[in-house]
Amino acid sequence: MDLSELAPGYIRAIAPYQTGKPIAEVAREMGLPESDIVKLASNENPLGASPRVLAAIENVIMELARYPDGNGFTLKTALAARHGVGLEQIVLGNGSNDVLELAARAFLMPQTSAVYSQHAFAVYPLATQVVGARGIEAPAKDFGHDPEALLAAIADDTRILFIANPNNPTGTLLDPVQLLGLIERVPENVLVVLDEAYTEYLPEEMKSDSVGWLKRFQNLIVTRTFSKAYGLAGLRVGYALASAQVASMMNRVRQPFNVNSLAQAAAVMAMQDEAFLDECLAINRAGMVQLTDGFKRLGLTYIPSYGNFVAVRVGDAAAINLSLLKQGVIVRPVANYGLPEHLRVSVGLEGENKVFLQALERALKEIKK
Amino acid sequence: MDLSELAPGYIRAIAPYQTGKPIAEVAREMGLPESDIVKLASNENPLGASPRVLAAIENVIMELARYPDGNGFTLKTALAARHGVGLEQIVLGNGSNDVLELAARAFLMPQTSAVYSQHAFAVYPLATQVVGARGIEAPAKDFGHDPEALLAAIADDTRILFIANPNNPTGTLLDPVQLLGLIERVPENVLVVLDEAYTEYLPEEMKSDSVGWLKRFQNLIVTRTFSKAYGLAGLRVGYALASAQVASMMNRVRQPFNVNSLAQAAAVMAMQDEAFLDECLAINRAGMVQLTDGFKRLGLTYIPSYGNFVAVRVGDAAAINLSLLKQGVIVRPVANYGLPEHLRVSVGLEGENKVFLQALERALKEIKK
Repeated sequence: MDLSELAPGYIRAIAPYQTGKPIAEVAREMGLPESDIVKLASNENPLGASPRVLAAIENVIMELARYPDGNGFTLKTALAARHGVGLEQIVLGNGSNDVLELAARAFLMPQTSAVYSQHAFAVYPLATQVVGARGIEAPAKDFGHDPEALLAAIADDTRILFIANPNNPTGTLLDPVQLLGLIERVPENVLVVLDEAYTEYLPEEMKSDSVGWLKRFQNLIVTRTFSKAYGLAGLRVGYALASAQVASMMNRVRQPFNVNSLAQAAAVMAMQDEAFLDECLAINRAGMVQLTDGFKRLGLTYIPSYGNFVAVRVGDAAAINLSLLKQGVIVRPVANYGLPEHLRVSVGLEGENKVFLQALERALKEIKK
Repeated sequence: MDLSELAPGYIRAIAPYQTGKPIAEVAREMGLPESDIVKLASNENPLGASPRVLAAIENVIMELARYPDGNGFTLKTALAARHGVGLEQIVLGNGSNDVLELAARAFLMPQTSAVYSQHAFAVYPLATQVVGARGIEAPAKDFGHDPEALLAAIADDTRILFIANPNNPTGTLLDPVQLLGLIERVPENVLVVLDEAYTEYLPEEMKSDSVGWLKRFQNLIVTRTFSKAYGLAGLRVGYALASAQVASMMNRVRQPFNVNSLAQAAAVMAMQDEAFLDECLAINRAGMVQLTDGFKRLGLTYIPSYGNFVAVRVGDAAAINLSLLKQGVIVRPVANYGLPEHLRVSVGLEGENKVFLQALERALKEIKK
């Protein structure tokens, strides 16, 4: 017998998430040395992690045989102090992917639904489908979230509205007024999962007081990650902030040791190293100008982005991507996001951005032939 | 409104998993310095991780800002070579807790059930409940798995039979003949999740050829961990081996970056360091003799164990546990496993075992007064 038939239909129907190709994989496939490859595919921090974080990891590395603190006391205490919330309002995750899934697993089931925007982060439909709930995609406006369309999409059985702000892969943003206006109009029995994975990259005037809003909105869940501006993608640590009731439900479906010890220690130290964060944000600002200037020079349009990445319209994105891979440059095709003519490029270091722009220019010339 | 009511009843009913108390937590609660505390509560490796593993971690620590390889190519290749299976038969997990849950999430749902033994590992009922399936507990025999009772408990809607071999927290074992006899009689449309977290501690003649059996039993899932004998509990890495069909379903519900980069690199190196593993097993054998000799001297009975821990019958286990905590010794109460008179003690280093036995003797004297 085919044992996959024992799995529910909604599991069998899942198409696995497409990850950015690891450098080692492209090196194997293209026969290139790893050191020659430029990866701008996964919105990673090109500066790496803070040296102070690396030192903090060294301090706990001798304790690897111990289980992590399943309650994450030290990290939660640091997060509570930073955000002015109680420990009972925090849910730690194995990356923010984990907390997004915990929200889905705690509140969705067959006969319920979740709403998200067209072109929004792919984990929302996946996390919805994997628990057998119905995903409702609201149409985007100018590649970004359209509050009216999202509100109109909410059905009687909707339990979660996912909002990515800024959105990945488009980099679009609802400003604080738009976002608050949206959340105010969401029915109180629908949870708003506000995914702020890229919030550190925002200019101050575009940052919402989302954590402050938790006092007003019992149905709000704010998610953050250490994978982007803090440069800890490889370690896996993120978190959600919510009302105590909602956090309690999410913690019930959480695996007790979901966040490893090194990640907990690293996150505590990463929060303290503001100088490193500032350096990363400055590099990102400069790199964004470099990339978008390059696109203009090449006559390409792009979606103005508030993140550490930008989606550029290249036409035959699959062909351009293949040419880039052969040149040792990894970026992200986004056809699976309904954007078959765009490529998403992460902002790298100046030299990486330059290599990418040169390779892109060559790719565009090749395709024209 | 109470937003927890938005969660399904089976989520609201979950009692979170009780983890072993971290050393820092007991130090805070008891006002003791951390260095004075002996923790024998979580079946951790008292020798820590292999020095070669620590060196391997150093090599990848500069790459923390990169996402892990979501396909785990290098680790899967090493596991495939070791076990003689294909890459497509492997599912990597954030600890083996993760792969146990992936099996439940891929194959269980409301209107289905899972069978497990009385006194078996607490994650089985939790992973069953969290997806809304029905848990069926079969009575134990001599504190261990009873094949006849397990087979009799299988219902028409049963999709998974969980077997822990050796079992945690009792340390009991089905020998290779008993285990094969059981698996042969399980209906082919019921998955057998064979949890071998402690298999490294078994004497050779008690090790089952479970991986070899995968060729015969399409419905078999073997799970292993690097948290115990390999000393990597803090990093979180485990895996499942199964037929390609079954592994594919589990990989669909897996988070793409569930295993962090350091864990992947550490696991690859841990498998190579056989000398360290041998040392750990020797320490465990000696420590087990030391502990059980101590119990005999104190007139206590215990459940003969094949793991790196032993459940000892102390009478009023809650009171004894409290006395031990006050003396800075952390072990595991197992009342939630239906064993209110036992404590589970992990095998430590010689000095740790000695401190524990002395503290236990004092605790027993206190209680008698």
